[in-house]
Order: sequence, then structure tokens, then C-alpha cells
Amino acid sequence: MSRELRFGVIGLGYWGPRIVRNLALDPRITLACVADLHQERCEAIARQYPYASATTDAEELLDDPHLDAIVIATPASTHFELAMAAIDRGKHVLVTKPLADSVAKAEKLVAAAGSAGVVLLVDHTFAYTGAVEKMRELVHQRFLGDIYYFDSVRVNLGLFQQDVNVIWDLAAHDFSILDQVLPEKPNAVQVVAVQRASRTFEDIAYVTVFYPSGMLAHVHVSWLSPVKIRSTLVGGSERMLLWDDLAPDEKLKIYDHGVSLSEGDVEGVYQMLVDYRIGDIWIPHIDRGEALTKEVAHFVDCIDGNAEPRTGGESGLRVVQLLMASSLSVEREGERVALT
Amino acid sequence: MSRELRFGVIGLGYWGPRIVRNLALDPRITLACVADLHQERCEAIARQYPYASATTDAEELLDDPHLDAIVIATPASTHFELAMAAIDRGKHVLVTKPLADSVAKAEKLVAAAGSAGVVLLVDHTFAYTGAVEKMRELVHQRFLGDIYYFDSVRVNLGLFQQDVNVIWDLAAHDFSILDQVLPEKPNAVQVVAVQRASRTFEDIAYVTVFYPSGMLAHVHVSWLSPVKIRSTLVGGSERMLLWDDLAPDEKLKIYDHGVSLSEGDVEGVYQMLVDYRIGDIWIPHIDRGEALTKEVAHFVDCIDGNAEPRTGGESGLRVVQLLMASSLSVEREGERVALT
Amino acid sequence: MSRELRFGVIGLGYWGPRIVRNLALDPRITLACVADLHQERCEAIARQYPYASATTDAEELLDDPHLDAIVIATPASTHFELAMAAIDRGKHVLVTKPLADSVAKAEKLVAAAGSAGVVLLVDHTFAYTGAVEKMRELVHQRFLGDIYYFDSVRVNLGLFQQDVNVIWDLAAHDFSILDQVLPEKPNAVQVVAVQRASRTFEDIAYVTVFYPSGMLAHVHVSWLSPVKIRSTLVGGSERMLLWDDLAPDEKLKIYDHGVSLSEGDVEGVYQMLVDYRIGDIWIPHIDRGEALTKEVAHFVDCIDGNAEPRTGGESGLRVVQLLMASSLSVEREGERVALT
Amino acid sequence: MSRELRFGVIGLGYWGPRIVRNLALDPRITLACVADLHQERCEAIARQYPYASATTDAEELLDDPHLDAIVIATPASTHFELAMAAIDRGKHVLVTKPLADSVAKAEKLVAAAGSAGVVLLVDHTFAYTGAVEKMRELVHQRFLGDIYYFDSVRVNLGLFQQDVNVIWDLAAHDFSILDQVLPEKPNAVQVVAVQRASRTFEDIAYVTVFYPSGMLAHVHVSWLSPVKIRSTLVGGSERMLLWDDLAPDEKLKIYDHGVSLSEGDVEGVYQMLVDYRIGDIWIPHIDRGEALTKEVAHFVDCIDGNAEPRTGGESGLRVVQLLMASSLSVEREGERVALT
Repeated sequence: MSRELRFGVIGLGYWGPRIVRNLALDPRITLACVADLHQERCEAIARQYPYASATTDAEELLDDPHLDAIVIATPASTHFELAMAAIDRGKHVLVTKPLADSVAKAEKLVAAAGSAGVVLLVDHTFAYTGAVEKMRELVHQRFLGDIYYFDSVRVNLGLFQQDVNVIWDLAAHDFSILDQVLPEKPNAVQVVAVQRASRTFEDIAYVTVFYPSGMLAHVHVSWLSPVKIRSTLVGGSERMLLWDDLAPDEKLKIYDHGVSLSEGDVEGVYQMLVDYRIGDIWIPHIDRGEALTKEVAHFVDCIDGNAEPRTGGESGLRVVQLLMASSLSVEREGERVALT
Repeated sequence: MSRELRFGVIGLGYWGPRIVRNLALDPRITLACVADLHQERCEAIARQYPYASATTDAEELLDDPHLDAIVIATPASTHFELAMAAIDRGKHVLVTKPLADSVAKAEKLVAAAGSAGVVLLVDHTFAYTGAVEKMRELVHQRFLGDIYYFDSVRVNLGLFQQDVNVIWDLAAHDFSILDQVLPEKPNAVQVVAVQRASRTFEDIAYVTVFYPSGMLAHVHVSWLSPVKIRSTLVGGSERMLLWDDLAPDEKLKIYDHGVSLSEGDVEGVYQMLVDYRIGDIWIPHIDRGEALTKEVAHFVDCIDGNAEPRTGGESGLRVVQLLMASSLSVEREGERVALT
Repeated sequence: MSRELRFGVIGLGYWGPRIVRNLALDPRITLACVADLHQERCEAIARQYPYASATTDAEELLDDPHLDAIVIATPASTHFELAMAAIDRGKHVLVTKPLADSVAKAEKLVAAAGSAGVVLLVDHTFAYTGAVEKMRELVHQRFLGDIYYFDSVRVNLGLFQQDVNVIWDLAAHDFSILDQVLPEKPNAVQVVAVQRASRTFEDIAYVTVFYPSGMLAHVHVSWLSPVKIRSTLVGGSERMLLWDDLAPDEKLKIYDHGVSLSEGDVEGVYQMLVDYRIGDIWIPHIDRGEALTKEVAHFVDCIDGNAEPRTGGESGLRVVQLLMASSLSVEREGERVALT
Repeated sequence: MSRELRFGVIGLGYWGPRIVRNLALDPRITLACVADLHQERCEAIARQYPYASATTDAEELLDDPHLDAIVIATPASTHFELAMAAIDRGKHVLVTKPLADSVAKAEKLVAAAGSAGVVLLVDHTFAYTGAVEKMRELVHQRFLGDIYYFDSVRVNLGLFQQDVNVIWDLAAHDFSILDQVLPEKPNAVQVVAVQRASRTFEDIAYVTVFYPSGMLAHVHVSWLSPVKIRSTLVGGSERMLLWDDLAPDEKLKIYDHGVSLSEGDVEGVYQMLVDYRIGDIWIPHIDRGEALTKEVAHFVDCIDGNAEPRTGGESGLRVVQLLMASSLSVEREGERVALT
């Protein structure tokens, strides 16, 4: 059992209050302080959690010597400065995705956290869902065989973001999921993206991620779909799976289906023989615990030295590398961009 | 009412017998002759349609002076030679997709049919489905407003084709549907395609088709999906639609949803304002007649001079142009290829 | 705008805290006091709403002269005594369903509230969903024509209730929905119910409700279904509808389908001619506001004299009459029981 | 391998030609003769199967000494006379459902076939589907544990039958499926049925079938539903299943879900403890062979002495008993009727 940890939270927009609610539920955590530029957001939290102090000055929070850990839930452009300030003061840091808005900044944060000996966790929440945990397990145990492809569709009507395009908003989730699920790391990315309704940011994008083994990942993201879809196919040489994150119960289906090819002589002609296997389908029961609750508990476990960060700085850095390479591919009108 | 037309059919593999069945049902047509290299296929048809003659020699069929029209349902590589022979003999021609295996050959067929004054129809069957007919009508009447994008997923487990890759097999359908539905013609194509299970042909492909207006079409085709999906989204400035061709009844859903953007001043800051509209959904009743039956009837109407070919040679040529440009993009590892 | 209303809540089990949360959100309401026999439930609420007093003695709450309205969220067997005490003290009352556990008690509560001039509202939450509001509107405007039938399936795995059978637990919802949606009142009920896994209460039941016009309502409720279903069909002479309450977006589908019959002479034989009409389907956008939030606002509107109770005492009484008649039918092994 | 069997078919309405097509596909069968009162139906078959003779006089067919087996696909009211005539002449008989329109007639047919030593098979086609075969296997192997209930919904818009009500039309399928799947035989039936659009026959019915063990079967049939549903739940003490016959691929889902109850002492109070188990779901691959093809093959196997009839006269008789008891319950306005 841990000593009690005192937490501060910077940023009370859309996601911040959700993190606050989960911090408040964890018995090992004391929600000590919150900060946001908007006075009324501070007041709303103060009404709900009268024991926490609130301030519109993030510096004040950062300087509080009694805090053990700081959650940063502000826009991406501010992550570097705030996270670095927290690390410099020896605080553990949980930062919303993406870790930073450039590779260089992300690398500096990883290095700084390493030197300071503090935990740096990136809030890639999907990593803590039962579905992603199960997919990771299935892929790592080679239950699917060699992985042929990963295909994700993540589309809906809005919400348009004010500061990033649809890739940074939505494909960031898939990049993190790929990092969790696959043992392999990508070597190139190629993107087709357009602005159709938006005047400032790409609102539809098709992102292809290449892997050394030939594994191909494709991610379709859009803010302009009339229907919301969160659907991922993963095909392997032995089995394949479909993850429908919007299904109320049966989110993950594993197909004992496959195809094998051989050469043969048919009617005196040498040709390819294709053999299909359509077997049973299996829908495993997966953990339904709320991902954010599990992430907060994992953060505390990491602080206590009882776990290694699943979505730590290095993982967050790899996501930023993919995001930056994607932006470069968009800039170069769909050219393939190598990841170095 | 037409005089009775005498038909010959060359090629009795998978699709040929389906065309034969529909010819036999049309009261304006006499199924006079069939041809296939395989004796047993000829015999199977002869048992079912004892009034039709059968031969293993296509030349014999082509030379029959009593035939008015010839259906060619053979592999793509033989289309040019057979169709040209039929046109040269003054026969009307219905040829399975694609029209030919090169742009030059397709152009020659179009020219030859024009000179000979015969009807040249390409069997792009989807054009004759109630769903595509309705989509065409909605787009042409500008019911969806400006078209933002067309996104199609056409995946399943196999069937691997022996002679073409997954783009020629499956994306050819989408290329023809785009040609039917959109008033605009594309100007470039870009493809990412891989071979994962197959040793000879690409079995997964992501095809992007660019249009002068900015309209973007994307087609995902695969022979390696554990689930069969035939799903198309079309987004417009006024309305959007979803076509699920596998839904037993409710294939086409039209969403009165939209997003509009404006600039504004919020809390003293100039910014983009996004307004979402979530309205009713409408599922129109669409014609459920069998597409192939309608196509055969349309072919007769064209021969009788009562209709203009919906999927005539020019339309088939445009599909071949997209297919060839796609193949070039695959060869060039995903480079964008202009359509001239 | 109303003067501020001071509320007390008795019962903090499963549903009570949900009501409390909605009271706290309504700016016209002050959550003044809560009561529950369990000390720890009181403490949990006190932590969240430090401005509300908490007590394990409901009498104390009832005697508080500063309360305007009392919410009763206790087991059904206690509703009568608690609600009567509140009415006697001149308080407005919102009581969870069912209003009481006997017709006589329900009638007394209705009479007492009438005499006291207080609002008596029953928490039949479904009445305040967008789907039920829309169905009521469609039926009352005769958009469906004559109503032929109402068929509801409301099944899931558990939760077994400790104090009532599956009819009182689940069919109570349908009885209230019928009361909201149909202009007609039922005249008989017939039930087949069994105990299969439970040793104390019926866990599967099929309830048929008869109406003077011939309209037939059927409700299938079960705690023993592996899948959760909340699906209702309403058939009319002009149109029909399907309400799937678990669909994330497209909950209500209206079918312009119908069947009309006539007599005729076919091939010299007098016979019935059936004509089917399969038309468009329409999915209206429905209000997605949280039902409980709207119910609380409606309660305040009723107290302020700005609305008539939608699920008032009389409506709640009719539900109790159906529940009691259902119990009698179960007792009599499926005999039809008239409603007087 | 069997000697070749010569078949005659009486009745070429809706179902007869489907049987004819399957007879024609079976290499052990010669389609020798067909009969129908309507000349044009005879001609249509004669065109398709020029080797078969056709007649408008069923007597002529029955008297043909060269026929081994006769298929009767006429309205139910004529089954007895025709089947008896065939049995009397020593022919094997395949008769469409129901076997006869009274229990007495069905009993006589069973007895006559027994005496004559001919095979009497009833065309309860569902018995030969992969889903029903798998359900039978699962129930007989006690994979589901004790069976708690069987719940079927079989509704659509029309087709209204000219000669029978919706129970004889649709519930007959469920009665046969129950007979196949369950080892137990029912002891009572209770029906609520109404005529809403039809003037002559019940078009909506709710049928409850009672079993000695407490197992409860419920069947909802209707010709007045805007959507077509073919959905069956079977709940057992160990596992439960859902059969959706309209699902293109995943027709049968087996849920490793359950509920167990025990008594216990909670907070000093003796009460029922409920334990839910939500486990994996399994979708077995089931045989997709066409049921009618398998049924015809099974009929030949029975004639050859290589199989015992799965849907023989006794099974067909039990279905008629349930249908007649259902009709009696309808007549008695929903009274429970014992099966003797």
C-alpha cells in the first residue's frame, strides 16, 4: 500500500474534469489543487471538490512543494513548458496526448524525466481498455500468427478541434494503439489528407504506416462522417479479428478464418491453389473497467515502483514521431516519409 | 416491341451462366448459341437450355450469321480480340468488366463500335442496382449539395482471382460506380497496395482518386478481411449518405446532417465557429429488381434505339484508364499518377 | 422564474443518488436534506453535496418545515406510508415507480394529494425520453392510423430484484409507456409467468393487455436473457414503427409500410386480395436530453403551476391497476383478468 | 449407392417448384412426372425439365406404376387424401407441412405408412438447417445444462395465407424445431391470437407451450410486422444461445453466461444471493448446405434404409397435435389446453 499521493491538475477544459473525477475516486490519491486560466472552470471544480484548492495561475500550482504529481490537461502547444517545469521540480507527470508538438520537445521531456527519476506517463487512454489489452495479448502470444495488416476506421461528425487537424486529433489514438499492440516499430508513413469543410485544418485523412516486415497499417480518420465508426480489423496468417469499439457488449471478435496458398497442377496447368478456412468465431469476455480509472491506478503503481509505464515517455515520443512524419507527408502532398 | 434478337454467349465460367439465365428470362431474346473451351461447361448449359446450340470453338459462334448480339464473359485478356471480332461482324456486344486490359485496346473497341454502328455495353452490373440509380439521382439533383468525399470499403475473404489483382477485381466496381454517380471526372489516382498472402497479386489496396473540384474518393479493397463489408459513405455540404449493400432491406440511408463553419468573435478572441446539424434520417425505398436482369433489358433497349448506353464503351474506357493508372501507381510505390 | 424550492430525498439505494444528481443540476432546486437507513449511504452523499444535511431517520426529514418537496426512492412497500406522510405535511411528492403496492393505497394517495393541493408525480422515467414523447405525438396525431398492436421485448440477464418479480420490475415500464402513448385505456390482462432460476419470484413473463378497440399489447420481460433487448414494435393501419432503445443514435424508425385487404374475383374464384405497400423509412431526430433531468424540471414546472403532471397520480394508479391484475392472472395460472 | 428412384410431384404452387429443383439436382433421383390443376404451371415446369411428363390430373400421376416416391406440395386440406392414395399404392411420400389438417387424419397416415412399409417424411425444412442441427446437438449433449426456456419471434409483413392462420403458417416451424431440439414433449398450450388486418384469419399470435419439467416455450408470430425477424433465444442453466436466422454469417451465438442463486447472510439479514457469470461468446461454424437439398437426400437415405426419418410421420403428427390444440385455445379465448 502506498503512502497517500497529493495531486495537482492543470487544465479543466473537456478532458481535465474527467481525470479529476477519476483521481477523486482513487483512495491512494488526494486531489490537492487544480488550475485553469478560466475562473469559472475553477469554481465549478471547487463546488464539486470543496477540499481542493483552485487557482487561475498554473505557476502557483507548479510551485506548491506539497504536490507529488501533476496532471497536465492543456492544449498540446503548452505541454512541453508545463511538463518540463513539473519535472524540474521533481514531480511525477501525467500529460494528455500528444506528449508534445514536436519530436525535439518530446525527446527532451523523456530525457529530463529520466534524469530526474520521475514517472512520465502519457494519457493514451485506449491502452487501458480491455479490448486493446486483449489484442496486445493475442498478438504477442502469436495467436493471430504473422500479422498481415491493421486497418482502422475512426470517423464521426466533428468535433472540429481549434488547434490541430484530424490526424493529431484522431489518428493519434491509432498510433498509440499500434505501439501497444504490435511488437514491431514502423519505418515510414504516407498520408492523403484534405480540407473539405474546414478552412484551417485537414478534416479527412487516410494514413498508411509501413513496417519492416511488410505489415501494413491503415487509418481512416474524418470529422465529416454522418455516422460514428470505431472499427478495426487485424488480419494474421492464423486468425483475424474485428474490434468494434461502439458495440455495447461484443467489442472483440476473433475469427478462426484464414487463407493458405500453394502451387499445384490442375487439369494439366500449373497454377496457384487457394484454400479458405472458415471456422468458429470467438468473442472473449474483456475487462469492462473504465480505462481512465485503470490508467490513474497504473500511474500510481508506476510512482510506487510496482509497474513499468505502459504509455510512458518513450511510447509517447514514438506517437509524436508518427504525427510529425504524417504532417510532413501532408505537406509534401502524399509523399512517403521515412521514420528515422 | 422489338423483333426477336438472337444471342450468342462466349465464356461459361462463373459469371457467364448467370448472364445466360437472364437472357433466357427476357422475352425479346432467343438464346441461340453458347461457347466455352471446356466441353463439360457446354454440356451443362445444353442440358438446361436444350434449344441452344453449344460449341467449344468461339470462332464458330462468331461466324454464325444469324446472331444479332454476342456476350463476352471470358477473362479480361481475351476481351479485345473477341469483342473486336464480334464488332467487325456487325454484332452488338455486351462484355464483362473490364472492357479491356489496356487503355489503347479499350479506345480501339470504342472507336470500332462507333464506326460499325453497333452497341457496345460493358457489364458494370452495379450501375443497374436500385442503390446506385438512387445515388446518381440524388447527386445529380444536388440533394447532397457539393460532394465532399466518396469513401468505399469493399473487403472479404477471397476469392483470389487467378489473373488480376484486388484492384482490377474489386475496385473496378467502385470506379464504375463513381463514373455513374458523379458528374465530375477524376484527374489523378494514388494507390498503396501490398501482397500479404498472395505470391502473385496485390491482395490489399487503398486507392485514392482525386477530382478537380477537390472531391476525394477513397476505395479500400481486400481479399484478406474476415468479414465481408460493402459500405460506402458519400458526404456533401447539405446531406450525407451511407450505402450498405449487404443490408437485406435498408441499403441506403440519407442523413440530413451537416456542419457549417463561420468566423466569429468569442470572448474577445477571433475564431472559427462550428455549427453541427443533426437532423432526420431517411431510408428511401429503392428498386429491388435484379441488376443483371435490368442490364440485359437495357442492352436490348439500346439495340432497339430506345435508350443510350448507361455503361457504354466510353464509360468502360474511363474505368480502364483508372485501373491502368492505379497499376502504374502501384509500380511506382504509391506515387500520385495524373489521368490525362 | 420560480422561487427556489427546497428538496428532501428519502432512499439512497440505486436510483436515489441518480435523482439527487439531477436535483443538484437544476438551478431552481436546493438539495436540502437526504435520508437513508444506511449510515454509509448518507455519508457518501454528504461528501459529494456538503451543503445538504443527511439523516438515517426519515421522520426527521419529513418533519422539516422548510422543505417544499420530497422525493421518495425507497422500496415499493414503503411508498404509501412515506408519501402519505409527506402529503399530510403539505409537501409535493415525487415517488419512484410503482406508486404503491396495491390499488387501494394508490387510490388513497391520489385522493390525498388532490385534497392537499400538492403535486404527486410518479417517476416513470421513460415518459420523459425523446422516443416516448415522439411516439405519443405520432399516435395522437393518427400518423400511424388505427393502432393494431404494441409489442415490447424487455429482457436482460438479471438484475434480480429482492422484493418484486420481473413484471413489477420491468413490465411496469411498458405499462406506463402504454399509458403515455395510447389514447385508449385497457380492459383486461392475461399473463404467463414462470420461475426458472429464481426461487422466490417470477423471472420470465409474457403479459398480454387487451383494449376495447381490439388493440393488443404484448410485453415480454425476462431476467434470464443472455442478450439485453429493449425493442418495441407498434403497428398501425397506415404506418408502423420500431423503437430500439439500445441503438446509440437511430432509436425510432417509422415505416411507411402497410397492408390492405379487399375482396375480389380471381380466376373465377371469390377470394381475399392482399396488397402490400413497402415505402420509405424515416428516422426522426429525437430529443436526446436525459430523461431524469427533464422529469425533475417537469416536476418543478408542475409545482409552479406551469404544467400538468404527465406521470401524475392517476397515471401511476393505472399502472398499479395493471400490475395488480397481472399478479392476479399469474396466481390464476394465466387466466384473463378484467380491469374494472 | 441406391438404384435410381423415380419421383412424382403433385402441386406446383410456391413451394413445389423449389422441391422439383432439388429433386433434379440429386443424382439418385429421376424427376418422372409432375401434376398441378393449373395447366400453365405444368407447362412452366415442362419447359425447364423437358424429360418429365406433366399432367393436370393428380390421379393419373398416382396411378403411374413406375413411380417410387411421391411428393405432395398441395394445400393442407388435401394432404390426407393424396398421401393416403400414394401410401395405398405403395409409394414413399414426402408431404409439405403440416402433415394433415386434423390429428385423426395425421394418425391414420402414420398408421397406414407403417403398415405399408413406406417412408412418410414431412417437409419440416428447418430440421435440416445447420443451425437447428447444431442446437439439437448442443441441447442433447446438455451443453446448455437444464433448459429454462425457448423463445422465438417469427414476424414479417405478410404473406397472408389464403387457407390458414398465422399459427398454422409460421408457428408450425417452431413446433417442429421444438420437436427436433428438445428431448422432452409438451403437455399444454395456450394462445392469444387476434385478427387485426385480416378479415378471415388470425394475423398475430402469441403461443405458449408448456413442458412437464417446467421448460417454457413461447412463440410470437405475426404477418403485421414492418421488419422481418427470425430470432430465437434458448436459455439453460449452464449456457444460453441466440439464433438469428437472418444473419448472413453469424447465425448462432452461444453465451457462456449464467446466473446462480444461493441463500446467504448479508449484514445480518438472511437473503437470496445472486451471482452472474458473463463469460465468452462462441459462434460455431455451422453447415451452410441448403436445407431442402439435405432433406431430399435424407428422404432417399430413408428409402434406401440407410437412415431413420428425422421429420417422419410421428414427428409431423406431434406438430399437428400442437397446431390443433392451439386452434382450440384460440377458440376458447386463450384458455390453456392440455395435450393428451
